Amino acid sequence: MNPKHSRFRRSGATNLGLRPQEAGATSTRNEKCVTDAYTQAGVSIEAGNEAVARYRRVLPKHTDPRVLEGIGGFAGCFALSGFRDPVLVASTDGVGTKLLVAAELHRFDTIGRDLVNHCVNDILCLNAVPLFFLDYLAVGKLDPAMAAAVVAGVGAACAEHEMTLLGGETAEMPGLYQVGHFDLAGTIVGAVERGELIDITRVAAGDVIVGLPANGFHTNGYSLVRKVLPPSRWREPFDGATVADALLAVHPSFLSAIRSAQRAGVTIKAMAHITGGGLIDNLPRALPPGLAAHVHPERWKVPAIMQVVVSEAALDRDGAFRVFNMGIGFCAIVAAAQASTALAAMPGSAVIGEIEPKSPHGDPVVIS
Amino acid sequence: MNPKHSRFRRSGATNLGLRPQEAGATSTRNEKCVTDAYTQAGVSIEAGNEAVARYRRVLPKHTDPRVLEGIGGFAGCFALSGFRDPVLVASTDGVGTKLLVAAELHRFDTIGRDLVNHCVNDILCLNAVPLFFLDYLAVGKLDPAMAAAVVAGVGAACAEHEMTLLGGETAEMPGLYQVGHFDLAGTIVGAVERGELIDITRVAAGDVIVGLPANGFHTNGYSLVRKVLPPSRWREPFDGATVADALLAVHPSFLSAIRSAQRAGVTIKAMAHITGGGLIDNLPRALPPGLAAHVHPERWKVPAIMQVVVSEAALDRDGAFRVFNMGIGFCAIVAAAQASTALAAMPGSAVIGEIEPKSPHGDPVVIS
Repeated sequence: MNPKHSRFRRSGATNLGLRPQEAGATSTRNEKCVTDAYTQAGVSIEAGNEAVARYRRVLPKHTDPRVLEGIGGFAGCFALSGFRDPVLVASTDGVGTKLLVAAELHRFDTIGRDLVNHCVNDILCLNAVPLFFLDYLAVGKLDPAMAAAVVAGVGAACAEHEMTLLGGETAEMPGLYQVGHFDLAGTIVGAVERGELIDITRVAAGDVIVGLPANGFHTNGYSLVRKVLPPSRWREPFDGATVADALLAVHPSFLSAIRSAQRAGVTIKAMAHITGGGLIDNLPRALPPGLAAHVHPERWKVPAIMQVVVSEAALDRDGAFRVFNMGIGFCAIVAAAQASTALAAMPGSAVIGEIEPKSPHGDPVVIS
Repeated sequence: MNPKHSRFRRSGATNLGLRPQEAGATSTRNEKCVTDAYTQAGVSIEAGNEAVARYRRVLPKHTDPRVLEGIGGFAGCFALSGFRDPVLVASTDGVGTKLLVAAELHRFDTIGRDLVNHCVNDILCLNAVPLFFLDYLAVGKLDPAMAAAVVAGVGAACAEHEMTLLGGETAEMPGLYQVGHFDLAGTIVGAVERGELIDITRVAAGDVIVGLPANGFHTNGYSLVRKVLPPSRWREPFDGATVADALLAVHPSFLSAIRSAQRAGVTIKAMAHITGGGLIDNLPRALPPGLAAHVHPERWKVPAIMQVVVSEAALDRDGAFRVFNMGIGFCAIVAAAQASTALAAMPGSAVIGEIEPKSPHGDPVVIS
């Protein structure tokens, strides 16, 4: 009956938390009257019920014993156990105008993965392990198949990280969006022992920056990308596939690579997720005062699609490194003595630079 | 440099977490080139910086010692202390098409409060105390004054609940929204000792339902409300103010009322936040199988503005009780012997009904 379809877990509705109404438990009294009124107002209750039914089918069936079921459905409940002195690490993010690429192409299966992986990487920078996720999907007119495809991507990426999709909201808001448009955002909550939190003050001159490769734009720069590469060009062949494929390459998660390095004995002193602002804006977040990151762009390859956009937008090098990740999706700062172990544990990684004293009026990121 | 302006806390940027770039710590190299490219793509970096500067001014200055500062800014860090066996309780929600009323009226100071209070009430149903909040504001074209007004409302309502605004995201997405439109969603994370979680199986026949009054539509039913009362009527005088004032009445928080009752010794067995679906859909979430809620609508007053909409939409009683809260914003179920204590502790509350055995094929909510 509600344009907003909460998806909290509840008893008997595995991994998806349906409201009693949605589970068919309540009456059918006079639904038609309400349905008619809402339909006139542009909200489809039928579409809402259909979307929820589809969510149930597409979401992974694994259950996390830490999720407490059957206590009303107004919110998700997650028992936090196994931590002595936990620090909760949380982040909210969206996927930006990559949405518009997905919407234009009617490809809805990847954008949920982009969102979750982006958020996983953000809390990974603090060394946090993902606990649970909540998504927010807003549409002008609810298309159950589209919504289910989006949410399936969210659920699949959560499952890959052994993270629970604890809640979510699907909002149908007639009049707010242009036809076919939607928005997707999400919130991740993770945790880390206080003693295992990243402490960037351990970073020292002489440490090296290990870069993990990007597979494209990830979730950043799409307003500019779409300006340079309009939809008319998305079907063009590119790099063995199409421009569209290159534009929708899924934002990768770097959690397993970083954990591999840690398991191999590498002490990761600091990390940076290279999103909006590129290396220039994001590397400084991993640096204590007085130090700079010196990166050497000849040491890695810029994704081909990014080369095209940089060239057609006539961005010079510094501009490009501020708008795009330029091929580096994530950075880990480690002692030089551990570099080879780190590289071996993280296939595709490269030592892209080193930490040095920052010159008095110099930039915190030097590219040369 | 990024269309997405994260607002995580960081060292030295009290209560607002600016990225190093936003705090002016990084270089000015070639910003113009990037600015030009982004501006052409519809994203204003200047507006973003201005919004962030305004956030800093409008957000409350109190600091929570549980928030750990200065560790990079990729996510918010909150030390969870003071719980023996914590259950985290989380919810994501939006404010629905009440947004469109605010947008049309250019009144941006209340919608953030609506959002936070709604979320506080949702986790209150599990007996959780709010810990932190993260907001998501998405706009087509960023108006810094408007964004600051929205975020100020979020911050003020967080402060009223001694809750930290741990993070947030402002996304400028050219092309996604119609002119002047925006979206606002948020995620709340609270906690409760496992032994103090609500257990609805304690609800028994003979218990009473104490209703707390709604002051209007709260955040529900606005697609229908806007259909019945179009913008042309919002300036009309109504009930001592205007229709607009009645439509934008802030969704109240019921946390302090419920805590007052608990401090007075009342054991609250279950709670229901009356949002989308009204009493008919939400009261069953607070009921164990086999029981029904019998409510008596003559015992409270329906807000005047709601009477107008119900009448003009020609909803009959059952329809109205499924679309709107009909004047009851929140319900607490208590033993009959504690009713008078509860009423004394919660001014404006009323015993609106009682719990009774559910008849075999009957509805879980009976209105008569």
